Amino acid sequence: EPEFEPDLSIFPEGLNAEVPLVELGSVYEIIPGLKPEMLMREKMELLLKFYQKEIVAGLERADSSGKTFIVDEWTRGENMGGGITRVFQDGRVFQKGGVNFSAIYGELPPAAAQRMHANHSELKVPENGKLPFYACGLSLVIHPQHYLAPSVHLNYRYFETLNEDGTPQSWWFGGGQDLSPMYYNKDDATHFHKLLKEFCDFHDPTYYSRFKKWADDYFRIKFRNEARGIGGIFFDDLHDKEPDMLFKFVGDGLSRFLPSYLPAVKRAYLPAAGGEERPTPEAGKHWQGIRRGRYAEFNLAVDRGTQFGLQTPGSRIESILMTLPKHCSWEYNYHPGPETLEGKTVEVLKNPIEYV
Amino acid sequence: EPEFEPDLSIFPEGLNAEVPLVELGSVYEIIPGLKPEMLMREKMELLLKFYQKEIVAGLERADSSGKTFIVDEWTRGENMGGGITRVFQDGRVFQKGGVNFSAIYGELPPAAAQRMHANHSELKVPENGKLPFYACGLSLVIHPQHYLAPSVHLNYRYFETLNEDGTPQSWWFGGGQDLSPMYYNKDDATHFHKLLKEFCDFHDPTYYSRFKKWADDYFRIKFRNEARGIGGIFFDDLHDKEPDMLFKFVGDGLSRFLPSYLPAVKRAYLPAAGGEERPTPEAGKHWQGIRRGRYAEFNLAVDRGTQFGLQTPGSRIESILMTLPKHCSWEYNYHPGPETLEGKTVEVLKNPIEYV
Repeated sequence: EPEFEPDLSIFPEGLNAEVPLVELGSVYEIIPGLKPEMLMREKMELLLKFYQKEIVAGLERADSSGKTFIVDEWTRGENMGGGITRVFQDGRVFQKGGVNFSAIYGELPPAAAQRMHANHSELKVPENGKLPFYACGLSLVIHPQHYLAPSVHLNYRYFETLNEDGTPQSWWFGGGQDLSPMYYNKDDATHFHKLLKEFCDFHDPTYYSRFKKWADDYFRIKFRNEARGIGGIFFDDLHDKEPDMLFKFVGDGLSRFLPSYLPAVKRAYLPAAGGEERPTPEAGKHWQGIRRGRYAEFNLAVDRGTQFGLQTPGSRIESILMTLPKHCSWEYNYHPGPETLEGKTVEVLKNPIEYV
Repeated sequence: EPEFEPDLSIFPEGLNAEVPLVELGSVYEIIPGLKPEMLMREKMELLLKFYQKEIVAGLERADSSGKTFIVDEWTRGENMGGGITRVFQDGRVFQKGGVNFSAIYGELPPAAAQRMHANHSELKVPENGKLPFYACGLSLVIHPQHYLAPSVHLNYRYFETLNEDGTPQSWWFGGGQDLSPMYYNKDDATHFHKLLKEFCDFHDPTYYSRFKKWADDYFRIKFRNEARGIGGIFFDDLHDKEPDMLFKFVGDGLSRFLPSYLPAVKRAYLPAAGGEERPTPEAGKHWQGIRRGRYAEFNLAVDRGTQFGLQTPGSRIESILMTLPKHCSWEYNYHPGPETLEGKTVEVLKNPIEYV
């Protein structure tokens, strides 16, 4: 059984949340071997694999237990692609998490190809109705041990439909990152959103407000009328600029993951700030179980990405469902009172806030 | 924390699994006030409410802790129906469960009305495309404390579309019951299926084999290629006999619930039968968490009934999600070895057995 009591003895040599902010737009200086003239597929794979390593290393350093992420490389059969699943379980700071890279080739069925044509007039559906595609992505979910430390999710992906000769036809980017605290903390939420807004603004002054609202809509458990967390950014089918400009945008998003997240994890182990109310460990663990049940509800019953994956023949179920928390609870009709710490958090989940 | 060690001291005055089998086809003798000439809506409501009480009383008796089911009566607004949700939590034998009655009036949207028309040629869709309907049902899920005791589900429902004057137009019955052990036990499974086959055979010699296969298909976590349990029976859109004959069939199904289920719960607290291997309490609790995670996966990501409920405006979310276990676990890529007790259970879940 993990120990949830704040353990200050792990500082200063323990939980290491120090990750320098790299300069925005500097992806070509950061990633070894990356060159502007490469195919976007190659560039994205280099980028995603680079940050998979960086993020895994940063989380292992913060966990400070010596535990490491396991590696599962998998393929979907000949010439259909595969991935690198990296999973962590039962650490000192992190209870469960995964950082998964995948790159797959396939054929969109006619109905999906037609739907896509609506947004991409340049897209040509072959006579047999099946449209070859390429998709790659990095998908990440982390659930910490401590009830004061938020869960977090990040996903960035690139999609191409292909001509018969394998050259790209239509393309777009999608992704985002969002934070799910068990207990709302204004400083954590503001820091998280501030870093997202900064890198969005660097690329387009409209991105943050559009993508923040999109996240508030997307990461919502509709049937409960509450968000799964305090949001972040989300976007899909993004192809409003030159591919390389959006590539740099995604690169900057990935660079902001550790610096936007780790300070909130570290705070859980620090003494309460002045005026900060905290739950008892018993109440905290109980509420953590309930909130994680809600997280599982979102992923299993709401999230279109998960549902698409579960219904796709040949997809790797374990890589999709690694997003589920290790322990979830459901109690009948559990509604914390509005004056409790738990109830105040629910209030924020029901009514998204503008943080920056 | 509940105590999972088999506790023989609660016998014989403790877990009371004795429920006499009433005579098949005797629903009119059993239920006070029930008369053949009543409207089917009235008869079904009497039947379902009668068995809601019976089943709740039988489970409370077996739990033997003195804890009782709470009652939540709810309505959907004027003239739209409502229900009686009865929920149990944190008992001695049962960890969580609900036995819910509901009876609702509403209007099917045009697309749903058209789909229904395909199976019911007598069905007349009004000019505005909206089809008035009535639906009632009893829905039940029980998750015991003990890892050797199976979870169980039952659902029986009746559906009518209505003419403008409120008289029935098309109608059908649906329902079933299925058992989800954490550890496969042949005697429990055989007893459960034997009682189901007996009452099915009394009404139609083809029902059991058809509805058993339907349950094997329906209660399946498709993306894992495994069933959520050892099945039972399932049927939908049943209108192949006179309404009153199917009403008696459903009545008999309800009468078999406690006698088919409670012996399996009792067995968990009895000494192991000769040759029976049992897990350690630690392994049993761990595996119970994993299996309950699978149960939640089925309910949230697969079950059409749950998805329909979650997407229906005005439905009572807490009554729908009371089916979720209190504690669920997910571990990455957890696959017990084929020679373990857990692995042998998975083998049965992947390959349904003919029990009787």
